[in-house]
Amino acid sequence: MKIVSIKHKSVPIQSKIRNAVVDFSEMTAGIVVIESDVIRNGKPLVGYGFTSNGRYAPCGIMAERMIPRLLKASESSLLSEDGRNFDPFKAWEVMMRNEKPGGHGERSVAVGAIDMALWDLVAKIEDKPLYQILADRYRGGEVNRRVYVYAAGGYYYPGKDLEMLKKEIQGFLDSGYESVKIKIGGASLDEDRKRIEAVAELTGFPGRIAVDANGKFTAEEAIKWAEALAPYKLKWYEEPVDPLDYAGLANVAEIYEGSLATGENLFSTIDTRNLIRHGGLRSDRDYLQMDPALSYGLVEYIRTLEMLSDHGWSHVRCIPHGGHQFSLHIAAGLGIGGNESYPGVFGAFGGFGDNIHPQAGYIEMPDAPGIGIEMKSDLMQIFKNL
Amino acid sequence: MKIVSIKHKSVPIQSKIRNAVVDFSEMTAGIVVIESDVIRNGKPLVGYGFTSNGRYAPCGIMAERMIPRLLKASESSLLSEDGRNFDPFKAWEVMMRNEKPGGHGERSVAVGAIDMALWDLVAKIEDKPLYQILADRYRGGEVNRRVYVYAAGGYYYPGKDLEMLKKEIQGFLDSGYESVKIKIGGASLDEDRKRIEAVAELTGFPGRIAVDANGKFTAEEAIKWAEALAPYKLKWYEEPVDPLDYAGLANVAEIYEGSLATGENLFSTIDTRNLIRHGGLRSDRDYLQMDPALSYGLVEYIRTLEMLSDHGWSHVRCIPHGGHQFSLHIAAGLGIGGNESYPGVFGAFGGFGDNIHPQAGYIEMPDAPGIGIEMKSDLMQIFKNL
Repeated sequence: MKIVSIKHKSVPIQSKIRNAVVDFSEMTAGIVVIESDVIRNGKPLVGYGFTSNGRYAPCGIMAERMIPRLLKASESSLLSEDGRNFDPFKAWEVMMRNEKPGGHGERSVAVGAIDMALWDLVAKIEDKPLYQILADRYRGGEVNRRVYVYAAGGYYYPGKDLEMLKKEIQGFLDSGYESVKIKIGGASLDEDRKRIEAVAELTGFPGRIAVDANGKFTAEEAIKWAEALAPYKLKWYEEPVDPLDYAGLANVAEIYEGSLATGENLFSTIDTRNLIRHGGLRSDRDYLQMDPALSYGLVEYIRTLEMLSDHGWSHVRCIPHGGHQFSLHIAAGLGIGGNESYPGVFGAFGGFGDNIHPQAGYIEMPDAPGIGIEMKSDLMQIFKNL
Repeated sequence: MKIVSIKHKSVPIQSKIRNAVVDFSEMTAGIVVIESDVIRNGKPLVGYGFTSNGRYAPCGIMAERMIPRLLKASESSLLSEDGRNFDPFKAWEVMMRNEKPGGHGERSVAVGAIDMALWDLVAKIEDKPLYQILADRYRGGEVNRRVYVYAAGGYYYPGKDLEMLKKEIQGFLDSGYESVKIKIGGASLDEDRKRIEAVAELTGFPGRIAVDANGKFTAEEAIKWAEALAPYKLKWYEEPVDPLDYAGLANVAEIYEGSLATGENLFSTIDTRNLIRHGGLRSDRDYLQMDPALSYGLVEYIRTLEMLSDHGWSHVRCIPHGGHQFSLHIAAGLGIGGNESYPGVFGAFGGFGDNIHPQAGYIEMPDAPGIGIEMKSDLMQIFKNL
């Protein structure tokens, strides 16, 4: 059993949104297709992966480092002990050979997308959905058939007023979401307060609204905003400070009784361990949003979950960034708390499948083998063009 | 005044060395040439930069993100207020536009190499060595004409025994270095002890030997080694634990009275701030080795030095990783504590110039404008092939 080819490509996302820090009009995503020599129904089985969103396609890193290492590796160095499937953990070691410690960014995205494609392939070889593989290996077969999702939107873009924001949010609610997330910090505190209140008219109460500052504030600003946000009792207050300002976050946690959330810009287990050690977060209420696709894949994410358990954090506190099917399967199979969703924001790279929609805020998991990219026709079209 | 072109290329280093974690046989470096429309002696002035060593060439990131942003920028957005030179701080903002916070690695190398080339160009436009520009802007013109350097070597490679190690170290001493660094952790503690003692026979006493574990040890192992190393009173004990294990480092600092050193695998001011906040380092004895070329360039390094001053750390505690001319100029111009040197290790990417050799452990700064890559004929040959 071996890898026949690994193809990859950078694709523009062409999204018009912006958050408090960046605009996404020139953002790219990287796609990966791994073709195996396993023939099923007359065709070789392939695994599909992509780089989530928010970080640019790291195609040079894949092309020059990770892919050549995998293609040069001996067959046994990529296979499980019994030789009947690929072993993503062994592949991970091959991909990271001769990489120095530290500096976890970009290469974590390259490895993450390839790791996603490998797990898709592994599940297809066993002819099961990925969540079933994960549940069988790590949870005695227990699957969460329904996965909590929330709609992330409420971005700023030129000319977008309160009415347009409400229309966007109403669309999320109409399509089956119960909780939503909107950006803050790209406007004045007064203006953002009005945005939150406008959205609360639709969701019924502010406890169904999360707000996201994308790491824009200094610790002092973040505390000022925390004080202003506290009375709303929001679902959570996300990335109040720079993702690496652990001490600043701890200061916010000290005065903010509600839930905080962060982690989408931490790309390794060891960075996340620093967040847990130094960030002052509270395991009874706060949320961790590390995105497996951006942070060295599911192999590293499993290590992160183990590290979190060692520090007394339940899997249910994890709700990954990214809104992709990979995390949906991880939620169903490993029992993490849910998944982000971007209805209509990142084009083909948002959403879970053509006919997969939430009901009362939960996604019913489909039975397709792998992670189910075949069930998303717009995304499949991009893969077919490769 | 404008940038006419920015060329770049990935070049194999083809070094046979290995440390405790990686081997360097497939390592690459990225080179950058920025051509301006400033004509001097009938030729356009150009700036040269490269990616230091230890991290792979991030050519995809330069080609797809940083270089297009610079080439698309308006003339004024790259120039100083008086329009008479380029402004690397403004160029930095252009390069980092629409980049999310966190994940500092790889892109920090891309920005760092371009930043090096920009500073080289800025200094050539003023027809001065870079250290003079820096001294004039930040230290009232005060230059350290002599810069402390130490020879980093003592790598492991197949078949290298104690005699070969001693021959290597004697070569360093003969060529004008007084202190040296050798790797540890790639062999047993007993074997490494013998290596240290063999080298001490040559340097006269172990206070002239630094040892480098390249982040290989767990905190427990690092402490065991610290206890074994303490009696030698070494120059410093470098990267005992993973560069991001701040709490583990603090545990080592608690029991190790000698100097510790780390920072070469931290690539941003905010990562370094976490080291200072959480790493337990002592500003009266420990060393910080952040490499400006790997960590978003001199623009970010100046921010790092400011942050360090705010935390009570003198510039002299900084001795950058990398052994390149860029840091040599920064040491002379900004008064940091010295610079690493790799005599003969990284081919053309090691060393400071054809006729630039240390005397009694110090380099006498040359007068060539820019950072002086023209004075290194082997490196210039690589740039000329671009």
